[in-house]
Amino acid sequence: MYSFVNDYSEGAHPRIMEAMVKTNLEQTSGYSTDYHTENAKRLIKKAIDCDDVNIHILVGGTQTNAIAISSFLRPHQAAIGVDTAHINVHETGAIEATGHKVLTAQSEDGKLKPEMIQKIVNEHTDEHMVQPKLVYISNSTEIGTIYKLDEIKAIKECCNKNNLLLFLDGARLGVGLTSKESDVKLSDLPKLCDAFYIGGTKNGALFGEALVICNNSLNEDFRFLIKQKGAMLAKGRLLGIQFEELFKDDLYFELARHANKMAILIKNAISEKGYKFKSDSSTNQQFPILPNDLISELEEKFSLGDIIRVDDKNSSIRIVTSWATDENIVYEFIKIIKKFDK
Amino acid sequence: MYSFVNDYSEGAHPRIMEAMVKTNLEQTSGYSTDYHTENAKRLIKKAIDCDDVNIHILVGGTQTNAIAISSFLRPHQAAIGVDTAHINVHETGAIEATGHKVLTAQSEDGKLKPEMIQKIVNEHTDEHMVQPKLVYISNSTEIGTIYKLDEIKAIKECCNKNNLLLFLDGARLGVGLTSKESDVKLSDLPKLCDAFYIGGTKNGALFGEALVICNNSLNEDFRFLIKQKGAMLAKGRLLGIQFEELFKDDLYFELARHANKMAILIKNAISEKGYKFKSDSSTNQQFPILPNDLISELEEKFSLGDIIRVDDKNSSIRIVTSWATDENIVYEFIKIIKKFDK
Amino acid sequence: MYSFVNDYSEGAHPRIMEAMVKTNLEQTSGYSTDYHTENAKRLIKKAIDCDDVNIHILVGGTQTNAIAISSFLRPHQAAIGVDTAHINVHETGAIEATGHKVLTAQSEDGKLKPEMIQKIVNEHTDEHMVQPKLVYISNSTEIGTIYKLDEIKAIKECCNKNNLLLFLDGARLGVGLTSKESDVKLSDLPKLCDAFYIGGTKNGALFGEALVICNNSLNEDFRFLIKQKGAMLAKGRLLGIQFEELFKDDLYFELARHANKMAILIKNAISEKGYKFKSDSSTNQQFPILPNDLISELEEKFSLGDIIRVDDKNSSIRIVTSWATDENIVYEFIKIIKKFDK
Amino acid sequence: MYSFVNDYSEGAHPRIMEAMVKTNLEQTSGYSTDYHTENAKRLIKKAIDCDDVNIHILVGGTQTNAIAISSFLRPHQAAIGVDTAHINVHETGAIEATGHKVLTAQSEDGKLKPEMIQKIVNEHTDEHMVQPKLVYISNSTEIGTIYKLDEIKAIKECCNKNNLLLFLDGARLGVGLTSKESDVKLSDLPKLCDAFYIGGTKNGALFGEALVICNNSLNEDFRFLIKQKGAMLAKGRLLGIQFEELFKDDLYFELARHANKMAILIKNAISEKGYKFKSDSSTNQQFPILPNDLISELEEKFSLGDIIRVDDKNSSIRIVTSWATDENIVYEFIKIIKKFDK
Repeated sequence: MYSFVNDYSEGAHPRIMEAMVKTNLEQTSGYSTDYHTENAKRLIKKAIDCDDVNIHILVGGTQTNAIAISSFLRPHQAAIGVDTAHINVHETGAIEATGHKVLTAQSEDGKLKPEMIQKIVNEHTDEHMVQPKLVYISNSTEIGTIYKLDEIKAIKECCNKNNLLLFLDGARLGVGLTSKESDVKLSDLPKLCDAFYIGGTKNGALFGEALVICNNSLNEDFRFLIKQKGAMLAKGRLLGIQFEELFKDDLYFELARHANKMAILIKNAISEKGYKFKSDSSTNQQFPILPNDLISELEEKFSLGDIIRVDDKNSSIRIVTSWATDENIVYEFIKIIKKFDK
Repeated sequence: MYSFVNDYSEGAHPRIMEAMVKTNLEQTSGYSTDYHTENAKRLIKKAIDCDDVNIHILVGGTQTNAIAISSFLRPHQAAIGVDTAHINVHETGAIEATGHKVLTAQSEDGKLKPEMIQKIVNEHTDEHMVQPKLVYISNSTEIGTIYKLDEIKAIKECCNKNNLLLFLDGARLGVGLTSKESDVKLSDLPKLCDAFYIGGTKNGALFGEALVICNNSLNEDFRFLIKQKGAMLAKGRLLGIQFEELFKDDLYFELARHANKMAILIKNAISEKGYKFKSDSSTNQQFPILPNDLISELEEKFSLGDIIRVDDKNSSIRIVTSWATDENIVYEFIKIIKKFDK
Repeated sequence: MYSFVNDYSEGAHPRIMEAMVKTNLEQTSGYSTDYHTENAKRLIKKAIDCDDVNIHILVGGTQTNAIAISSFLRPHQAAIGVDTAHINVHETGAIEATGHKVLTAQSEDGKLKPEMIQKIVNEHTDEHMVQPKLVYISNSTEIGTIYKLDEIKAIKECCNKNNLLLFLDGARLGVGLTSKESDVKLSDLPKLCDAFYIGGTKNGALFGEALVICNNSLNEDFRFLIKQKGAMLAKGRLLGIQFEELFKDDLYFELARHANKMAILIKNAISEKGYKFKSDSSTNQQFPILPNDLISELEEKFSLGDIIRVDDKNSSIRIVTSWATDENIVYEFIKIIKKFDK
Repeated sequence: MYSFVNDYSEGAHPRIMEAMVKTNLEQTSGYSTDYHTENAKRLIKKAIDCDDVNIHILVGGTQTNAIAISSFLRPHQAAIGVDTAHINVHETGAIEATGHKVLTAQSEDGKLKPEMIQKIVNEHTDEHMVQPKLVYISNSTEIGTIYKLDEIKAIKECCNKNNLLLFLDGARLGVGLTSKESDVKLSDLPKLCDAFYIGGTKNGALFGEALVICNNSLNEDFRFLIKQKGAMLAKGRLLGIQFEELFKDDLYFELARHANKMAILIKNAISEKGYKFKSDSSTNQQFPILPNDLISELEEKFSLGDIIRVDDKNSSIRIVTSWATDENIVYEFIKIIKKFDK
C-alpha cells in the first residue's frame, strides 16, 4: 500500500544518509556548537543572502514554534493567526502551555490578511485583554495555499504600523517557495520577517527546522530557551550535517520542486475529470472532493489522509506528495482517476 | 586531539547507522505509531521482563524529565532530588518552567538517601508550602556513582510510606547497570520505579531515551503531553529503529560495558599513581584530582572536561569514556599518566 | 455625574460595613481558617441546600476562574466557552497563563448550547490537539442574558456524555437567579455543576466570590492552589464576614432583585420609545441602541459604558445597575429618555 | 486566649475602618484608577521622597512577589534568595508556578550577603543552567532581623556588577525601618532597589502591599500582568483608601513602632531571665528558646506559634506583636516569664 498520507513517511534523502554515515565517527562538540552546524549556518546565510541573522537548527516544528514564540513574547502578549494555523489546532496547545493566547481570524484560504490582523488589534484595547504582539503565518499554509510577495509585504506593513512581530512558520517552506505560482524568494524573507524557519523534516531531512532570527533584538539568550524547553540536541551535529547537505547546492529546492511536480500531476488529472478542490493549492498538499466510489477504489492501492464527508456521494481527501514520491506510482494513481466512470 | 569530554561526541554505533540506512525508504506512519517502534517496545519489555508497562521513546533527556515530571505532578507538587541532580542544575530550569519546584538535599556521593527524603517531607507540612510528590534519582549519578539494589529498595520503601512516586533518570543507565559494582538488573526497575528511562543518546544511539511508565495510573493521555512539549518526532521510526537495534540482542549492555572498561583502565592507572578522585565512580565518568603539570601534558593530546582548581598545584578533571572510545588511545592516555614524574 | 458604568462603583452594603467594623478587633486565625468563614460556609450550604460540597471564598472572579480551572485540568486539557466568555476576552489570558487553551463557539445570545460543545468535542480527535475537558458558562452572561433550567440541564447532559466538567461563573449569579425570567434556583446548581461560584463583588460585597466545589474528586489539595496563585488572603475573615452577612438572611438576593428592578425600569422606558437592544437582557446589564443625540444628552448627567457606533446616527451603550443604584436617579434618567424627541 | 501567633490576627486600624465607611457610597472608577488610589500614590511618593517611580497597590504579598518577579524576568531567568526566603519556603512554589527557579544560599541570620550572591552567579556559567537575574531580600527578614544601610548598599553594588535586579519584599517593612537598630530610611529604598513594596497587611491595613517600581525599564505593561494573575481588584479604591490613611501622616510608622516596642518589652524580659534566642531580632517577631514548662504555662493564657523542640527540656517559639497588640496584655505575658522558676 503506497502512502500519500503525509510528507514525512520516509527517512531522509540518500545524500543526507550518506553524509551522516560518513561523518559518524568524527568527534565533535555537543549541543550544536560543532563545525558542521557552523558550516550549515554559513550556507543558509548565503542562501538567504543575509549575514546579519542568528540561526538555530532545532528538531521539530511544534518545538520551534513554542520556543520562538515564548521567547519573543512577554507573559501577557498573544500571537495572531488564522483559525487553521498549526499553532492553533495541531500542537496540543503548545503555545498556551507556555502561557500565551493564540488569537484567531477565520480564513477561507488559510491565509492571514492585514484587515484580519487590524481587526484583532483594534479589539484589544486595554490591560483587561491580552496584548496582540506577534503575527504567525505559514508558507505554504495548512491547506496548501501560498503567500504572494505583495501579500507578505502588506502583512509586514500592518505589523510595523501596529508594533507587531512577524513570524513565518516554514515547515513547508520548500514547496511554498518553489510553487509555480510563488513570486517569493528565500532572500525576501530576512527583509520581511522578524523570524522564520526553513523546514527540513517535510523536505528530505530526517528531522530539523532551521530557525532564522532576523530581528536582532530577539536574539538575547535564545539558547537558554532552547535548552529549557528540552530542545537542545546533545548530538547537534546531526542537524548541522543535514542542513549542510541540503544547502551545499540546490538540493533543498530540488526536493521541494519534485514534491510540487508530483502534486500538480495529480491535481491536473483530477481537475481534468471536473472534480473540485477544497482549496486552491499549488503545492504538495491537495484536497480534492471525489466520489466515494473513486476514493474506495484508490484506497485499494493507496493510503489517503483526512477523508471527510462532503455529501452523500462525495468526500474530500488529503493527498500529500514529497521529495520521495515515486513518479511511476503517481501515474498509476492518476490512471485510476482517469479510468473512473462516475 | 582526542576527546574525553563526554559520551556523545560521536554519532551512533555502526549497526544503528546500518539499520537506519537499510530502512530509509520504507514508508511508515508518523509520530511513533510505526512498526519499528512497536517492535522496539516489544524488545524492551522483554529486556525488562515486564509486559505491564507503557513505553514512549523520546529524543532527549531534559525533554523526557520535563514531560514525565510535569505529567505526573499536579501544579502544587514538587520533585525531590540531590543538589547535583541534572534536573536541578543542568536543565536551565526545565522543571520549574513547567511550574514545579525541585527540592534538594545535599549529597556528597551524588546519591539520594531515604533520610534526606524523609527530612524534606517532614518539613513540608501544609498548603503554604509545595507538596513533595516525586523522588528523582539518576543511575549512574552525575558524578559516576551507582545505586546498589538495597539502596533503591530503601528509597522505594520511603516513597511508599510517604505516598511519593519514584522516577529514575537513566540517561546513563547502561553504564550504571553494567558497572562491576552494580547488583541492579534492568528487570528490577519495573518493580521499584513508577517510571524510569533507558538512555540511548549516551550509549550508542544518535539520540533517544526510552521512557518506561510502570505505574499504570500515570499513563493517561501521556502522548498529549509529548506533543504539547514539542517532543513528538514526526519520523518517530528513527527512535524505534535505534532501540530495535540496541535491544534485539545484548548490544545496549555490550556498549555500556565497553565504556566502563575503558574508564576503569584509566581509573586504575590513576589510582596506581596514588592520585585521588572527587567521587568513587565505577562507571564511565571519572573525576581524578591531578597535578596541573600532568593535566597540561594530557591536554596536548586530549580534550578534557571540567577542569576545576583544587589547590595551587592540583585540579580535578572529568574524563568520560563511551561505547566509541578507542582502547589503543586509552593506552596512550595511560602511558602519559604512568610516565609522569611529580 | 452619576455612573451607570458598572456594578462595582460603590463599596459594600452598609450591613457588611457594620459587620466589618463590629468584628474589627477580634483576633482570628488567618487564611480563611477562622470561625466567621466557617459560619459563612455553613450558611451558604444551607442556601444551596447541599452539605456535600467544599467552599472556598476568594477575592475576585479572574482569580477564581484561573485557580479552579488550572486545578481541575491536566496540562493538555482545555476549557470550552462562548466567544464572549469572560475567560476568553476579559482576563488578559489568565487561563492560558496557567497553560490551558480556551476553545470557543460563536454565540449570538452569549449562551453556550450543547450542539456547540458537541461540535468542539467532535473536532478534537487525537493527541495532536488539546483535549476539551471543562465547559465554562456564566449566569447571567456577559451580555445580561440568563440560562433557563432546561438549558443548563441539557448542557450537563452533554457534559456527562462527553466526560466534561461543568463550571459556572457566577460573578453575576445574584441577578441571574433573581431575574423575572429565571426558573433556576440556587439549590439547582450543586446538582448540575461540578463547581460554581456565588459572586459577591458585583452584588453588595467589597469583594469576594464563594467557590462551591460540588464534585468531590476536584477537592484534593485545592488550598495549595489558592496559595500558589497568591489568592490566600491573610485576613481571610474579611471574606467570611461578608458572606455571613449576605447569607444570614435573604440579603444576597434582595440586593440582586433591586439591581434587576432598576434595570428593568430603564429597559421598559427605552422599549416604550421603540429603541432596540443588542441583547435581550432581563438582568442588571442593558445594551440599548440609542440615537447619538440622546446618548449625548444622557451623558451630561450620567456616565455610560461601552459606547459603540452602530450606524451614523445610533450607538449601543452599556447601562449597569446595582444593589446601590438610587431609584430616584433612575427616574431622572428615564425622564430624559421619555422626553427625547427623535 | 490572647494570640501572639502573627501580625494579621485583627482587622485594620480604626482610622482605616472609618475612612472605608466614610467613603463607602462614593462612586469611583474600578481597578485602581480611582482618585483615592491616585492620592495614595502621591502620598507614598512624598514619603519615599521620589517622584520618578510607578506604584501599584496589590492585595497580598505572595501575589506581589509572583507578579513582580514574573514580569521582571524572562523565562530562563532565576531569582536569588536565602534558604528561608518567603518565596522559597512559604508561597507554595508561586514563583516556580510562573516558570522561574529560586536559587538559594544558606544564611544563619536570614540575610543575604554579596558573597552568597557572587557564588551563585559564578556557578551559573552557561545556557545549560538558569540565569540568575534578580536578587530577592526581605526587610525585616523571616526571622526578624534587619538589614543595615551598608548591607543593602553592598548588595546593590554586587547587583550592579553582575547585572542583577534588586527586589525588596517589604511585607514587614514598617517594623524593619522603625527598629531601633535600623539606619535605613524609606527614602533610601528608591535609590537602592529596582522595586520594593511597602506592606500594609501586617501593619494595620485590612490588606494591601504598595509595590514601588523604581527602575523605569520594568514598568512596561505592568498592569497587564496584574490582571492576568487575577490580582486587579475591582474595587481598587479599597487599596487606595487604606494607603491614603496610612500615609496622610505618620500612621504607617507609628503602628510599626508600637509593634516593635511591644516585642522589645518581651525580648528584654526574656533576656533578663537568661534565655537565648534563635535569631537576634530587633523587630516584632521574636524567637526565644524557653523551657517547655514555661511554654506550657504561657499557653494557658496565650496562643503561641511555631513551637519547635530544641532539646529534651526546651523549645523555641515564635512570638509576634503587631500594631494592635495591647500593652497591658504584654505586661501580663512578661509577668509570667518573670515569675517562672526554672
